[in-house]
Amino acid sequence: MTDLWYSEYHAADVRFSIKVTRQLCSEQTPFQKIDFFESETFGTFFTIDGLVMATQKDEFAYHDMIAHVPFAVHPAVRRVLIIGGGDGGTAREVCRYPGVEHVDLVDIDERVVRLCQQYLPQTASVLDSDPRVHLHFEDGLQFVGRAEEGMYDLVLVDSTDPVGPGEGLFTHAFYQNCHRALTEDGILINQHESPYYPIYAHEMLRAHAKIRATFPIARVYEFHMPTYPSGHWLFGFASKRYDPVADFRPERWNALGLKTRYYNTDLHTAAFALPTYVKELLEHGA
Amino acid sequence: MTDLWYSEYHAADVRFSIKVTRQLCSEQTPFQKIDFFESETFGTFFTIDGLVMATQKDEFAYHDMIAHVPFAVHPAVRRVLIIGGGDGGTAREVCRYPGVEHVDLVDIDERVVRLCQQYLPQTASVLDSDPRVHLHFEDGLQFVGRAEEGMYDLVLVDSTDPVGPGEGLFTHAFYQNCHRALTEDGILINQHESPYYPIYAHEMLRAHAKIRATFPIARVYEFHMPTYPSGHWLFGFASKRYDPVADFRPERWNALGLKTRYYNTDLHTAAFALPTYVKELLEHGA
Amino acid sequence: MTDLWYSEYHAADVRFSIKVTRQLCSEQTPFQKIDFFESETFGTFFTIDGLVMATQKDEFAYHDMIAHVPFAVHPAVRRVLIIGGGDGGTAREVCRYPGVEHVDLVDIDERVVRLCQQYLPQTASVLDSDPRVHLHFEDGLQFVGRAEEGMYDLVLVDSTDPVGPGEGLFTHAFYQNCHRALTEDGILINQHESPYYPIYAHEMLRAHAKIRATFPIARVYEFHMPTYPSGHWLFGFASKRYDPVADFRPERWNALGLKTRYYNTDLHTAAFALPTYVKELLEHGA
Amino acid sequence: MTDLWYSEYHAADVRFSIKVTRQLCSEQTPFQKIDFFESETFGTFFTIDGLVMATQKDEFAYHDMIAHVPFAVHPAVRRVLIIGGGDGGTAREVCRYPGVEHVDLVDIDERVVRLCQQYLPQTASVLDSDPRVHLHFEDGLQFVGRAEEGMYDLVLVDSTDPVGPGEGLFTHAFYQNCHRALTEDGILINQHESPYYPIYAHEMLRAHAKIRATFPIARVYEFHMPTYPSGHWLFGFASKRYDPVADFRPERWNALGLKTRYYNTDLHTAAFALPTYVKELLEHGA
Repeated sequence: MTDLWYSEYHAADVRFSIKVTRQLCSEQTPFQKIDFFESETFGTFFTIDGLVMATQKDEFAYHDMIAHVPFAVHPAVRRVLIIGGGDGGTAREVCRYPGVEHVDLVDIDERVVRLCQQYLPQTASVLDSDPRVHLHFEDGLQFVGRAEEGMYDLVLVDSTDPVGPGEGLFTHAFYQNCHRALTEDGILINQHESPYYPIYAHEMLRAHAKIRATFPIARVYEFHMPTYPSGHWLFGFASKRYDPVADFRPERWNALGLKTRYYNTDLHTAAFALPTYVKELLEHGA
Repeated sequence: MTDLWYSEYHAADVRFSIKVTRQLCSEQTPFQKIDFFESETFGTFFTIDGLVMATQKDEFAYHDMIAHVPFAVHPAVRRVLIIGGGDGGTAREVCRYPGVEHVDLVDIDERVVRLCQQYLPQTASVLDSDPRVHLHFEDGLQFVGRAEEGMYDLVLVDSTDPVGPGEGLFTHAFYQNCHRALTEDGILINQHESPYYPIYAHEMLRAHAKIRATFPIARVYEFHMPTYPSGHWLFGFASKRYDPVADFRPERWNALGLKTRYYNTDLHTAAFALPTYVKELLEHGA
Repeated sequence: MTDLWYSEYHAADVRFSIKVTRQLCSEQTPFQKIDFFESETFGTFFTIDGLVMATQKDEFAYHDMIAHVPFAVHPAVRRVLIIGGGDGGTAREVCRYPGVEHVDLVDIDERVVRLCQQYLPQTASVLDSDPRVHLHFEDGLQFVGRAEEGMYDLVLVDSTDPVGPGEGLFTHAFYQNCHRALTEDGILINQHESPYYPIYAHEMLRAHAKIRATFPIARVYEFHMPTYPSGHWLFGFASKRYDPVADFRPERWNALGLKTRYYNTDLHTAAFALPTYVKELLEHGA
Repeated sequence: MTDLWYSEYHAADVRFSIKVTRQLCSEQTPFQKIDFFESETFGTFFTIDGLVMATQKDEFAYHDMIAHVPFAVHPAVRRVLIIGGGDGGTAREVCRYPGVEHVDLVDIDERVVRLCQQYLPQTASVLDSDPRVHLHFEDGLQFVGRAEEGMYDLVLVDSTDPVGPGEGLFTHAFYQNCHRALTEDGILINQHESPYYPIYAHEMLRAHAKIRATFPIARVYEFHMPTYPSGHWLFGFASKRYDPVADFRPERWNALGLKTRYYNTDLHTAAFALPTYVKELLEHGA
């Protein structure tokens, strides 16, 4: 009966609030503020610097869409680099592919990983249990800057917004290093913000311009993420060779027999069909 | 600087709030409570019984998706029945088609229409200006019960949620009367709630079961509606003859040269590709 | 059932909120923003620049305490100057004294008066009905600067907080002009902020220091005002001659037979007994 | 920057909210829900069943007024019974009197004491450090029912509201047992709710009627408690012999040289002067 509400401002005049049954922890790390909460509707959820990162109820949508889309295009992903993603949800989905041999997960803040291991095993338990996952607690921009050329088939940028620690992951230098670290047929997926509220649309445009200047193929796809601002969220798909629709092989992916709650092969192509206003924003800017 | 917030509870522990620059009017009619507000991010918006109906900023998504999907399938819509839709946004989109000869708009509450004409001309101005639109202020269930057989090519159910005045528009009797009032190749589109929060998913399932029992073809499509609960919203497409994807004619629709902000012909097919959990809900229930 | 809440921040991290049944009006004047609201618990209330000025439910406490305390001390108030007080509540109490011959009410913003006459007749109706009240819509600092020496027996400063239009009413110049405009045995009562939350306590101290430097007798008294920050509110009593306790004549006041809901002659003396921390603040500062 | 707010509803349409920097603990005991929070303005505070019990910033007002008023009347308090008061603040003030020989503190819920010892030493540290304090974790009604006749000079009822575990402490049986357990010149002080919001005023009246039927002398006094509903709070003073004003000995109390932040001997008498509407409520009911 204690009346305790977490709120996130999606715009200065738009507030999304979740009633909290208890706060599980609150920690200021050298990089950011991390809070874990319990709630009835969303189960456990955590925030970084006051913004929802993942909830037990809808994290599946995000992690399905960041991971399965590239795997349904690339014929043989063996080496994966995850930048950010300290909650482990992206690694969990990646590790479902038997062909994956090596996963480097680079999160600047070890505390995100440790706290998710403690409070959110739904996403983080794979980080302990799968020996293919290698944790690196350092700046993603620096890590990818040092990476050998052509080391990765897939880079997944599972970052916070481009403020604070996540800022470097939205720069030209970062995307160029990703390009270099990828194989000739490698794929980059990046958390691409949202087209709806102006501050998010602004970052969406900035990221898109930079990726388009770096990769010959750069597409954007959308999904429903109810606990993120507006619920309308995007990922970017960039590659030197593969087009996410033309080179999509649904039968190959379906043959893997993976059970998913959000992604499916009909949705794959559909996700790249964007509302007209989003297409126009991406093509012509605000 | 006055701190005044409108809130809507998407679940008992989930609250979506909009800062209001002023309340434009508040009226209790014999049917429902109607409030109009001004806000910075969403412009003018109105609520019925405390739930957001339409905002200036995102009504285009809803009205594009209720209207253009059936028009891109049916080859010659001439007579249209709109049930609910007193804000005029659905009628506005319908009236953009020159082939349309007659539109009956049936809203139980004349005050919705009159207040939208006063405060929300963006959606309602067509109700005055287009002579094809005929307003009827009565119960939609009774209107369609009296309608002649095969009167309409298209019925658009633009209703509130199935509580209060909207309740009758989610019944077997209503859907059967719609079936009767439609031509042999007529199409029914209905506001189909949302799959995400439990109370909405529950109504989605109830409506779907009834429509599926009434029409041989019954599909569901989705779109992003940021000011509705979870932002993940659905319409139903039901017909005696047309399949919304197989009978879709993009070139015919594109030839009309209509400028839209949300709908486009790529999105048309895409909208019918649903996330796995939504498909499973619709097929097997909760 | 519409969920609409007015909030006031008593500190950056303390919020007092009232559920509003409807907003009655919202007007930006050349001086300030004025909003009127209806609520169940407080009835009609109005705010200036987002701060509660008066509610139907508890205005009696404020208006009793600003008006009756000086009348129970001064033997013969005939001419009264009210600075601010556009809602009329202070004038209403002053006009209950038959000995009062002339009341000048100076509010910089005519709209406060006009809107209170329309929406809050409980306080404002006296402004029309009592011919002794003379309305002046101009800056209080200038009005009192032009006032003849010794014109008033009583000056009541019923101002907003010292931000915006109310700022000049908390200056040395203002208090000195009040001193000049008062008769030799005149009394100044001023809205004296609150000792509890730091920003209010800060203004309380600044006002007190200036009044003490201007008047030989300067005391502070307290009362309970639930809709003001912390509910702990103060008035200042300053005079050239009268001490509010030593010169208090309860029997004379009681003989008038005035019915009041907050003030009484026991409370009169009691109100000048302050908590130790307030006394220490006033004597030694923060 | 995490936006987390605790709220308390003072009425169904009145909400008081404190921004929380972190939740320190949340525990459901067999009796009640206990939560501790940190905040900037109020420091650490705790709630029981969602209602603020004590904050670091303003607990001094409550504990000064419950404890020092009876000690300034009764000439020689030696044995004290505190019912409730598990936070220790009342015991802390009582223990400042060297004449006190024995203090029984009876709180039904040991967890209140243990959590306050951990998180709120400002009030609770005395419970460890003063050997005169004897803790009893049982129902206050039963404890006082078993107490010997004339055991206590002073009973302080520092209870929660009359809902849940606190309910028995607002009954005829309880007050009669207090009467029996008190010496011939003993004093009972009870937490007496508030006159302002209707649900609190209702309990105030019920308590007052019962105490007045039990003790020949039954008075009510008020103080400012900003974090309690309306900020206007009351204690009851009941006795077989002493009148709190007529038998008040300020010089004796001042001679003790106790430093206090709220209570002082001027305020003592003043606190018993109530606003007219409160007097009328107490005399004639709602």
